[in-house]
Order: sequence, then C-alpha cells, then structure tokens
Amino acid sequence: MNAPAVKIPPNLSPIEHLLALAADDMAKVDAIIRARMQSPVGMIPDLAEHLVGAGGKRLRPLLTIAAAHLCGYQGEHHYKLAAAVEFIHSATLLHDDVVDLSAKRRGKKAANLIWGNAPSILVGDFLFARSFNLMVETGSMEALGILSTASSVIAEGEVRQLAGLRDVEMSVETYMQTIGAKTAALFAAAAEVSPVLAGSGTAKQNALRTYGQELGLAFQLVDDALDYGGFEVSLGKSIGDDFREGKMTLPVIIAYANAVKNDDTTARAFWKRVITDHDQNEDDLAVATAYLKSENALEATLGAARAHVKTAQSALDVFEDGNWKSALMRLADFVVERVS
Amino acid sequence: MNAPAVKIPPNLSPIEHLLALAADDMAKVDAIIRARMQSPVGMIPDLAEHLVGAGGKRLRPLLTIAAAHLCGYQGEHHYKLAAAVEFIHSATLLHDDVVDLSAKRRGKKAANLIWGNAPSILVGDFLFARSFNLMVETGSMEALGILSTASSVIAEGEVRQLAGLRDVEMSVETYMQTIGAKTAALFAAAAEVSPVLAGSGTAKQNALRTYGQELGLAFQLVDDALDYGGFEVSLGKSIGDDFREGKMTLPVIIAYANAVKNDDTTARAFWKRVITDHDQNEDDLAVATAYLKSENALEATLGAARAHVKTAQSALDVFEDGNWKSALMRLADFVVERVS
Repeated sequence: MNAPAVKIPPNLSPIEHLLALAADDMAKVDAIIRARMQSPVGMIPDLAEHLVGAGGKRLRPLLTIAAAHLCGYQGEHHYKLAAAVEFIHSATLLHDDVVDLSAKRRGKKAANLIWGNAPSILVGDFLFARSFNLMVETGSMEALGILSTASSVIAEGEVRQLAGLRDVEMSVETYMQTIGAKTAALFAAAAEVSPVLAGSGTAKQNALRTYGQELGLAFQLVDDALDYGGFEVSLGKSIGDDFREGKMTLPVIIAYANAVKNDDTTARAFWKRVITDHDQNEDDLAVATAYLKSENALEATLGAARAHVKTAQSALDVFEDGNWKSALMRLADFVVERVS
Repeated sequence: MNAPAVKIPPNLSPIEHLLALAADDMAKVDAIIRARMQSPVGMIPDLAEHLVGAGGKRLRPLLTIAAAHLCGYQGEHHYKLAAAVEFIHSATLLHDDVVDLSAKRRGKKAANLIWGNAPSILVGDFLFARSFNLMVETGSMEALGILSTASSVIAEGEVRQLAGLRDVEMSVETYMQTIGAKTAALFAAAAEVSPVLAGSGTAKQNALRTYGQELGLAFQLVDDALDYGGFEVSLGKSIGDDFREGKMTLPVIIAYANAVKNDDTTARAFWKRVITDHDQNEDDLAVATAYLKSENALEATLGAARAHVKTAQSALDVFEDGNWKSALMRLADFVVERVS
C-alpha cells in the first residue's frame, strides 16, 4: 500500500527516510508555514525565520503527515494541521527559551538573546494564534479540540516543570507526568488529528494517539540523557542546560535515589548543593556526569525510553503493514538508537 | 424589549448599570472563569486568581453578554465565549506585564513581580489555550475564526508597539493601527461573536464589530491620556508607565508634532532625549505632563476618543431601541466621561 512515488536513496537514517517518503507533503507544509508566519510587522517574520528557518527536525508535523498516509487520508487538511502543530511547537520553544534562559536553540543563538525577551514572548503568541487560524480553516472541530487541549496540557506541563525546579526529591511519577504533558502531549495530538480527518474510527485514533504519546515520552527521555553529553550526536543546543537550571530529569532522579539508598552522604550532599541550593561551580557538571555514569543513570534512562518505544510500536498493530507503518516503526527505534 | 428582571439601583455609572443589568449572566461567566482556570498544578490557579480574582472591569465579556441580549440570543454559548474573551485578555495582560516590566496591574502588584516572569508567561499560555477549549465547546467555528484572528491581530499589535518604542517620529496612523490591533480587536471580536451565535445576519454582525472596534479605540485613547495623570479617576496601575518605557502615544505624538511645527528647539530636544535616547531623570514626567497640558494634547486625545465614541454609537442604529441598546450607548459615552 501507498507505494512511494519518490525514489528513496539507501542508507538514510529512519527520520531522513521518512522525510524523503514525505518530501512532497513536507514541501507543502513548509510553504504554509512560511506563508502564515508573514506579517506587515517586520519583526515577526524576522524572528520567526530565525527559528522556523533553522529547520529543526520537523518531527511533529512529519507525524501528522505520516499518520494521514497510514490512515489513507485523501484530503488536503493535514497540511494545515501539520503547519499548526509546528507553530504550536515553535511558540513553546520561543517561550521556553525565555523561561529557561537558554543560550542556544537548533544550533543557533536563541532568539531571545538576539531580539530580547519581549519579541520572543509576543511572536510566540502570534504563532500560537496563527496555529488556531489554520485549524479553523480545516473546519474540523474535533481536531481543534484535540490540539487546543494539547496546548493547555503543554502549558500545564511547563508550569509543573517550573514548580519542580530544584526539587531534588522529585518522584519518577511527577517527572513522567511533566514530560508527558510538556512534550508527549503534542506528539500525541500531532498523530491523532490525522485519523480524525480521515474518519478512521476510534481504534485507529487511539492507536495513533498512543503511538505519539509514547514516542514523545521516549524522545524526551533521550533528550534528558543527552543533556549530560557523552553521546555521538549533535543536539543543536547547549550541553548541561538542565543541570545549570536545577531541572530534575530521570538521570538525576535515579542517581539521587541511589545515593539515598546507599546512604552515600557525599553524593547526597553534592546533589542537594547543586540542585536544591542551586550552588554550582564550573566543575560540577563534570562531577554530576561522572555520578550519572557510575550509577548507570544515563543507560537506565535510555532503557526507559526503549520501553516506551516498544509500546509506541505495539500500538500500530491495528494497522496493516506497509511503507508508512514500517517507516513509523523504524522512526520509533531511531529515537533511541540515535544516541547509541 | 428585554425588560430586566433585576431591580437596578439609581445613580449607577453606566458600567455599573450594565453590570447590574447583566448580573445573573456575569455570575455565570464568572463561574466558568473560575472553574476553567483550575489545574492540579497549584501555581496556575494561584497566579490566575491573583489576576482574575482582582476582577478588573470585565468590560470585554460584558460586551459579549450585552451584545447577545441585544441580538435576542436564547442559548447558553455566550457564557463560554465571554469567559474565553476574558481568558484571552488575561493572557495578554500577563504577557504585557513581562514585556512592559509593569509594577502594578489592577491596583495590585503585577504577577511577574511576585512569581517571576516565567510563571506569568506560562500561565498566560495556559489561559490562552483554555480560551480555545471553551470556544471549541460552543461548536461555533465562526466564533473560533473571529477570536483566533483577533488573537493574532493582538499579538501583531503588541509587536508593532514594541517596534515603535522610542520612535519619537511615530505617525498618528501607525499609532492608530497599533491600538486598533492591540486593544480594539478584542473589543470588536467580543461584540461580534454574539450576533454570530444568534444568527443575526451580516448587518448586525458588522454593526457590533464596529461598535466594539470603535469603543476599543476610544478606551485606549483615554487610557493613554490617563497615563499622564491629572484626572480624578483611579487607573489601578502606575501613572507614567508609558512615559518611562518610551512608549509613543497620541498625547506625545501631538506635543512633539507641535514642537516641530513651532520650531520649539527646547521642546524637541526634550522629547528626543526622553523618548529617542530614553535618557530620563526624576523630574521629566512632570515636565512632559506640563508640555502635554500646555499643548492641549491630553484634551485633543480625549477629543479623538469622543469621535470614536460617536462612531460606535452610530453603529447601533441598526438595532431597535431598548434597555440593552441604551446601556451600550451610555457605556460608550462613559468610556470618555469617566475622566471628565
């Protein structure tokens, strides 16, 4: 089914393979993104171009496109929803960079450090509003419901993360709730809107939502491991950002739990100083990374990611085999494999 | 028509009169606002309560309610749209306070000075997303289109304002475009969604959009005059905020234009120093206010507001006389009269 019209070169990574398979669609999505980030107020396209033009992986709109093919959708509305998904993502990135005081984004200087915080906040608002304009144009109230709910869940997740900063005793459950909201909710919504457009029924809708949610969890777990470096992959952002912010992620939760279990007072004191007291010096990131490695905390985090990849893949059982299903299966593996 | 069930006390201001007329409706709107700003993430209701609980005038949702009555709307969806309008407004206030570095909002310390910028940004995003959840629940795609378009226009207006900071040569046209977008667009949308719900037809829809837009322009013009003080009214925010930010508003545009016309080099040098160079000392607000008064710039600004009030009122000609029409007519007058 869905034999690709394009010739796919061999030896591509799964995401490159999927991007090649969806090249024509993604060109249409890109055209919508570029057309709809325009404004007579020049600062808006300038700043949007800095972020959107930097590309990124376009993973979330790609999910929408791939899910639409998987469901045999024949219409045109998935292009606008994919663009809307990317606008929501771009808006949260702009706001995150102000909130997190990030130095780099997608390998470039973060927009707020060039234009200042105010334009990043306001252009984020603009892109977020534009995402709803695009959704309205599709006429799908159900898709609007899914994406607007995801948007409020994302904001809730971001606030939860903020409230949990420097909480060295954060539970795994709170952490998983946080990343489920701030990251996985948009992956889930991006995948779920396509069966809604296609009218594929509840089973396939649930399956794609689960696929997106689990893929999003795996993606964030891997990202949180990558923040401590040591992997042969370019993040396009600074190493150690989470650590410097006092952000609790699974690697640190695991390492701190081990320190408590083993009654390692030196390690406990270290984590309390750098996280709770947020008293850090230049060498502390290296010390932290050494602790994480000696406790196998990064490997354990990748292990957790692999489990979510498996759940994501199983969710696709309801679909017949084919190019798009196999591309999504491989994409899920790749989310973890990219660091190995 | 629409005889009010409630007994309205005499000697109320027009806005108090309208609030009394709409008391039952506004209680329902308030209940929706309070229910939908809840979240298991405690920082969200805490911060939202600080802003939303402070009340404000609830002028925008009141427009939605009054317009619904004027159109004889018999359903329930206007409550959710009114709450959505207030959420959009609250979100922009939270973001504005971060952008403007405001000290006070609604007579209370601005939220960003209590919780920090990050929660203000993120809770703003949450309220904005929740506004779309509410709109989706009404099932009106047309209302969604109107409010999502207004949201992107607002953000565009905010960016335009930011880009025009310290531009002492700003034209009246640019200023009017800016306030038309950042303020009037939401007034217009708040009034326009009700005839849409009621199916009142294009003429009444256009009339209420015009009423809202013109009322919004008058409202912002008056606000911009009030920023220079000297009026017997409490703003609930600090005097001189616009001046200290180097924000160009109509009073300053008029005073600077007069200084150019009269070749008053002292006045021109003053405005260039305090606006363009943003080099201000403690006495400068008083000097600026004295210039504005001697040039009748504040009176001229209020005169411009009065003209927009007249246009707003004329737009209501398509409606039959009645309690709600007369309340909206008086409300428009009051927007300017409150400062006299």
